[in-house]
Amino acid sequence: MNPRPRIHLTEVAPRDGLQAEACFVPSADKIALIDMLSRSGLAKIEVTSFVSPQAIPALADADAVLGTIHRAPEIIYTVLVPNLRGAERALPLRPDEFNLVMSVSESHNRANLRRSCEESFSALREVVALARTAGIAINVSLSTAFGCPYEGEVAQARVLDWAWQFFDLGVDSIALCDTTGMAYPAQVSTISAAWARRWPLETLTLHFHNTRGMGLANVLAGAAAGVRRFDASLGGLGGCPYAPGATGNVCTEDVAHMLELQGYDCGIDIDILLAASERLQKLVGHEVPGQILKAGRRLERRPAAIVKR
Amino acid sequence: MNPRPRIHLTEVAPRDGLQAEACFVPSADKIALIDMLSRSGLAKIEVTSFVSPQAIPALADADAVLGTIHRAPEIIYTVLVPNLRGAERALPLRPDEFNLVMSVSESHNRANLRRSCEESFSALREVVALARTAGIAINVSLSTAFGCPYEGEVAQARVLDWAWQFFDLGVDSIALCDTTGMAYPAQVSTISAAWARRWPLETLTLHFHNTRGMGLANVLAGAAAGVRRFDASLGGLGGCPYAPGATGNVCTEDVAHMLELQGYDCGIDIDILLAASERLQKLVGHEVPGQILKAGRRLERRPAAIVKR
Repeated sequence: MNPRPRIHLTEVAPRDGLQAEACFVPSADKIALIDMLSRSGLAKIEVTSFVSPQAIPALADADAVLGTIHRAPEIIYTVLVPNLRGAERALPLRPDEFNLVMSVSESHNRANLRRSCEESFSALREVVALARTAGIAINVSLSTAFGCPYEGEVAQARVLDWAWQFFDLGVDSIALCDTTGMAYPAQVSTISAAWARRWPLETLTLHFHNTRGMGLANVLAGAAAGVRRFDASLGGLGGCPYAPGATGNVCTEDVAHMLELQGYDCGIDIDILLAASERLQKLVGHEVPGQILKAGRRLERRPAAIVKR
Repeated sequence: MNPRPRIHLTEVAPRDGLQAEACFVPSADKIALIDMLSRSGLAKIEVTSFVSPQAIPALADADAVLGTIHRAPEIIYTVLVPNLRGAERALPLRPDEFNLVMSVSESHNRANLRRSCEESFSALREVVALARTAGIAINVSLSTAFGCPYEGEVAQARVLDWAWQFFDLGVDSIALCDTTGMAYPAQVSTISAAWARRWPLETLTLHFHNTRGMGLANVLAGAAAGVRRFDASLGGLGGCPYAPGATGNVCTEDVAHMLELQGYDCGIDIDILLAASERLQKLVGHEVPGQILKAGRRLERRPAAIVKR
């Protein structure tokens, strides 16, 4: 009997989801949510961002949240660190990992971080040095890796070249991020195969948005190519939909539900995820785009209304 | 150079989409929409349903609509006929095809059509006989082919057995319908392969719902297995979402957009589809779930807001 391939999911809602919310979710609620997520079988949780509280007030309580959550030994607790100042602030709280962010397309990096890719890289180099000295793992999230809303197509060679440069600095892993939902399955297969020819696939996480409806199809293409690590957001929260009504991050419970049906082992207790997703919905005060939360799991019997065709 | 595989899309919004709407879309608007769709490169359009006007007032104008649209010679204009009375009503208007519907799970057929599968089959046999005499093609849409909300799993053998019985009657083609969004890609691959061992894949259409987020992934799995015919609904309208907020039919423009990126040739002018989808949105007076309509095509440059990660 073939064992089911193990997939490792990173939950990004506490950072990537909440940062986009207008309301401030009280620290105690964030902590309770993350503690609940810690019991669901996730491999990694992006807890918060050590960004300036002026820039993102929703995450102004990063220190309190990271310092108070109950950390399960088998889970990697990662935090976004935008710069050296953020890293120095996070360091005493000993997260398991720093998550650094840079766009691989110049115009997106300028629009988002107000500097060139080279300037970002130089600044992040110092953060990497600090993390290595402190013995904290480093993931780099490369934005616009599947296309840029300003420049269009982003060459695969450019993406892989930035990955090389970061690996040369000593980072442990890289996430390729489909920031505005431009990835399509054939593209995902190609870049995953190219990655596997250069580096172990354990170093790669794929981060998809469902902006053009292909989020789950992209996850599946990545998994078929041997990728075992995916970012996802509880309820599909966040991911900065860049058009009104468009969806952002792929939804953790929808991803786990599909992958389990496809014969992968996510190690996830979907009941806990669904309960957490319902709680999240209440915390943010609006509906989240996740589908399983509304429709139930595939074989869940519901007193369905009469359904035609 | 390999030619791109040709995919044939059936547009179901004028019937499957509009039947679920509370408002009555004026006949002239329906006709203008269908005429617009006829210029977009679709292979087939489900124009309306010859159901009792009391049962579905939204489609009470079936005769006027089918009798007035401009029919392009290369497009198959199909109509849903629920029973012999509907078929006799539709016959003088000479649609290219009758689309008959039956669930393959007993409890869903009872809930939806208030009779057993055998009773439905007997009644449809008369419709098939009439259509064959009149020289009208027949498609049978088998509901709950990928699972039943009441019974759970539906055995593949049962689905294929009903297909046999209908082919034995002389029907031309069959659509396997994922009525409540229970299909998953591995299941689609399996049943498509089983079909290909029995019948030409030209006889098979797949009809998916996005209820659990896997709609496009299922289309892709079908296409990879050699299926070349898919139902889809403009804007993703209709498909009777059976849970509040859940989505129904996969969206035609989203399906076409993905398939073209994946190297298939849908023969579709997406600009026309998008214009039609926008018009449809106005006609029904609410937002439709389609994603490309909101986010634009993959390489469409939009003055995006600042997008993080």
